[in-house]
Amino acid sequence: MMKKFTITMLAIAICFSVLAQEKVDPAAMQKIRTEGLEKSKVMDIAFQITDVAGPRLSNSPGLKRAQNWAVKQLTDWGLKNVQLEAWGKFGKGWQVDKYYAATTLPFYHAIIASPKAWTPGTNGPIKSEVILIKADTITDLDKYKGKLAGKIVLFDQVTLQPLVTTYKPDAVKHPDSTLAKMEQATPAAQRPGRPAGNNNVMAQMMKMREVRAAMNTMLLEEKVGLILTYARGNHGTFFTSNGASYALDAKPVSPELEVSPEDFLHILRLLRAGEKVEVEADIKTSFYDQDPDGYNVIAEIPGTDKKLKDEIVMIGGHYDSWHSATGATDNAAGSAVMMEVMRILKAIDFKPKRTIRIALWSSEEQGLYGSKNYVAKHFADPKTMILTKDHKKVSAYYNLDNGTGAIRGIYLQGNAEAGPIFKEWLTPFNDIGAKTVTINNTGGTDHQAFDAVGIPGFQFIQDPMDYNTRTHHTNQDTFDRLVEEDLKRAATIVAAFVYNTSERTAQIPRKELPKAPETPKP
Amino acid sequence: MMKKFTITMLAIAICFSVLAQEKVDPAAMQKIRTEGLEKSKVMDIAFQITDVAGPRLSNSPGLKRAQNWAVKQLTDWGLKNVQLEAWGKFGKGWQVDKYYAATTLPFYHAIIASPKAWTPGTNGPIKSEVILIKADTITDLDKYKGKLAGKIVLFDQVTLQPLVTTYKPDAVKHPDSTLAKMEQATPAAQRPGRPAGNNNVMAQMMKMREVRAAMNTMLLEEKVGLILTYARGNHGTFFTSNGASYALDAKPVSPELEVSPEDFLHILRLLRAGEKVEVEADIKTSFYDQDPDGYNVIAEIPGTDKKLKDEIVMIGGHYDSWHSATGATDNAAGSAVMMEVMRILKAIDFKPKRTIRIALWSSEEQGLYGSKNYVAKHFADPKTMILTKDHKKVSAYYNLDNGTGAIRGIYLQGNAEAGPIFKEWLTPFNDIGAKTVTINNTGGTDHQAFDAVGIPGFQFIQDPMDYNTRTHHTNQDTFDRLVEEDLKRAATIVAAFVYNTSERTAQIPRKELPKAPETPKP
Repeated sequence: MMKKFTITMLAIAICFSVLAQEKVDPAAMQKIRTEGLEKSKVMDIAFQITDVAGPRLSNSPGLKRAQNWAVKQLTDWGLKNVQLEAWGKFGKGWQVDKYYAATTLPFYHAIIASPKAWTPGTNGPIKSEVILIKADTITDLDKYKGKLAGKIVLFDQVTLQPLVTTYKPDAVKHPDSTLAKMEQATPAAQRPGRPAGNNNVMAQMMKMREVRAAMNTMLLEEKVGLILTYARGNHGTFFTSNGASYALDAKPVSPELEVSPEDFLHILRLLRAGEKVEVEADIKTSFYDQDPDGYNVIAEIPGTDKKLKDEIVMIGGHYDSWHSATGATDNAAGSAVMMEVMRILKAIDFKPKRTIRIALWSSEEQGLYGSKNYVAKHFADPKTMILTKDHKKVSAYYNLDNGTGAIRGIYLQGNAEAGPIFKEWLTPFNDIGAKTVTINNTGGTDHQAFDAVGIPGFQFIQDPMDYNTRTHHTNQDTFDRLVEEDLKRAATIVAAFVYNTSERTAQIPRKELPKAPETPKP
Repeated sequence: MMKKFTITMLAIAICFSVLAQEKVDPAAMQKIRTEGLEKSKVMDIAFQITDVAGPRLSNSPGLKRAQNWAVKQLTDWGLKNVQLEAWGKFGKGWQVDKYYAATTLPFYHAIIASPKAWTPGTNGPIKSEVILIKADTITDLDKYKGKLAGKIVLFDQVTLQPLVTTYKPDAVKHPDSTLAKMEQATPAAQRPGRPAGNNNVMAQMMKMREVRAAMNTMLLEEKVGLILTYARGNHGTFFTSNGASYALDAKPVSPELEVSPEDFLHILRLLRAGEKVEVEADIKTSFYDQDPDGYNVIAEIPGTDKKLKDEIVMIGGHYDSWHSATGATDNAAGSAVMMEVMRILKAIDFKPKRTIRIALWSSEEQGLYGSKNYVAKHFADPKTMILTKDHKKVSAYYNLDNGTGAIRGIYLQGNAEAGPIFKEWLTPFNDIGAKTVTINNTGGTDHQAFDAVGIPGFQFIQDPMDYNTRTHHTNQDTFDRLVEEDLKRAATIVAAFVYNTSERTAQIPRKELPKAPETPKP
């Protein structure tokens, strides 16, 4: 009881001292609003990233197209230091050149599916009876030896459940009660904001991947024609995932399709009932290993204040996507908003005190590689916590990567001192739904790369929409999912945050510097 | 005020007199419940009709497979007079033998789509730039003359709207308030229960079809390679429709795809923006005109009462479907339930007083042809209202064709006198959600063929589920949508209705005989 009282008093004290300081410039805010809400180009930008460039799997031709377009567009808007900056070795690019599959027995039916990322094609059309493989372990496969050459196979996973009709909407917005709960969260409830990839879940995933790789090796020795794998989803929507290693020295794997649940379960029910199923397929994929480096798109509006121009306000979002759609909500939405922020700031002829830098990251989907490597190179090694000279120059990094949903506020990642500042900055946008500041962490995206080394890194609170039911890593993550009004508003709000961060006398307050998980090498 | 009072008094009077008469046999009801709820085969039946037989477009090989299976199954259960009964000329059968299409520019993307029913294939693989045709009238097409040979074309319909994110669930059950409103409906609000096809909507559709046919003829003269047409839907679900005439002497038409909205709008946005789009496709379809007759599956459990055995209780549902899925909710669900009803009645060794007859109709989707022609042949010509000798023998016809949703009660089609009878019959099933009796009509399915000639014909009230959002005439109307518990319960309830109709002393009361819309020919 005593502790709570103390924290509240402290919060109020901070709040009052900051409020005096955080008077925002209403004229500037109005200019940003007019440009962002009434002269928006965010949908045109999103159109280029999705409809024109296509799927943007790491190091794929689609990502290259999108990156080249962004470099040109950012340059055309008058940004400086526009570049594709290599962040290190990624591995192979990959894309689908042809996908066709259908059941031909017991009747003809074209299958909704996608090759798993980084799997090979079928080397021409194939057609075979589908073999039902019941295998919980690698050795269970032995009984199929000598029978699988050129065959199309399907694993019988006893854990597979029939699809269930739900009575909940696919898409939701945060109700006021959820936002209120976020606002009332206390720092005690927060876990440290380490990047994704360092936790148990990732370890389990790696373990599963190993088992799967071993299975693939066995099936490869048998020269299996094609593996059909269940993809979760519903009604023609299915979720995609990583199919094989993108490493330059990756072992070869069998061709593998992720099949929409309806089509997969259809075949599975027939096989379990002893019916003969025949499938034909023709899949062609290409690998790209000429340039295994990964790249981020970087561009700046240089600072103009003599003392502050070397300091940086960063914004970004990941630009890469999965392969079976055009990654509209994950994350053309966030990328388009961040590009639009730069356009807005140029359009209103803003001469920032601090330098404003945009980063469109790559390989976020494989483990935040673009942002983590960028941070390690420019600011700090998260393992040793050895800092570069630029570490102290970054006032804040703002990220957008939670779909098309409207910005409703911001996650503080446990940075309590930033709370009253952001609360004030949101005031001019309360009328368009953004007002919640929560001490909570959120994970799974690139602000974590900054947060992990003690640079204030933030992701905005966004309405969930149909991200988890229909769009996140699905074959239906298309331009159609983007909500124009919400993206316009998002760009306007982020532009205001960038403006304020740039012009603020002091940098955004920092949390205590994280301890190095590893001892620095001598 | 006076009139309402009179009706209420009359209803109460009927109610009391009937209640005395409608005492149901609790032991028989319990037998039916045990067989229907605990030993159900309804999902096995549905599996055969959907997963094994496939799409069941009128006169297609899929429908034949399903019909042959039903004849065998009904025979195996010991039903009598099992037959495929021809109801008259339908036209050509048709099926898809291969469907493949993808954009190849600006990037590769496999398209979710389906050939329109009764359209030809592409005669081998084709590939072309997609031509955007802006044409509101036939003459608008003139400017494209000489430019379309072998080309893939797409109509720019200015009325097309972007997809919109909804916050409503796809699937719903009837809330109590809706059922209460149905129960309280009055006869005055009812329109006559004429079959679908005789109204303005149908006339408008026919008009549209004429314009479309004329357009198709023009494009055919140009030897267009393939027409891409917008199919409404969302998230990989799309709705199919009739593509061309199934008449034996139908004029040839161009190959035409119904394209899922995401893939269609993608291409449309690109073309409108001046981007080059290239599509490749390979579509093969087959027509079947060796036997243009349409058939219904008919089977009976013969009556055993000396006086009543020539009287008939009929049940049915249409067995045909659209072509892009397996027609699970439209209407394998109703067909499986009605077959299961017959199985239940045989399994409990029921010796009915009246003859119980099942009909699995065909060509309902083209205009209730199977049921209307059956009724015209066996009971009455709806145009002249000349009755056969069997017209008076049919006590009632019960239909099921509103998807997988649970039976919540029954529509009286304005037959007030049947109300108290059905109310009583539903009593043993109130605990499983069926209790509503409404004076309302419902339309769009085969009970109307009976109702139109004055034979009591009823469709049960069913929960809507995701019929209108995801399953009705879509590419996602698959076995996965079937809700086992609801189908079991439906079969149990219908079996009870059939039992009671068979054993009832009197036939189900009839409404006044409809007047002939046409004067009988001399």
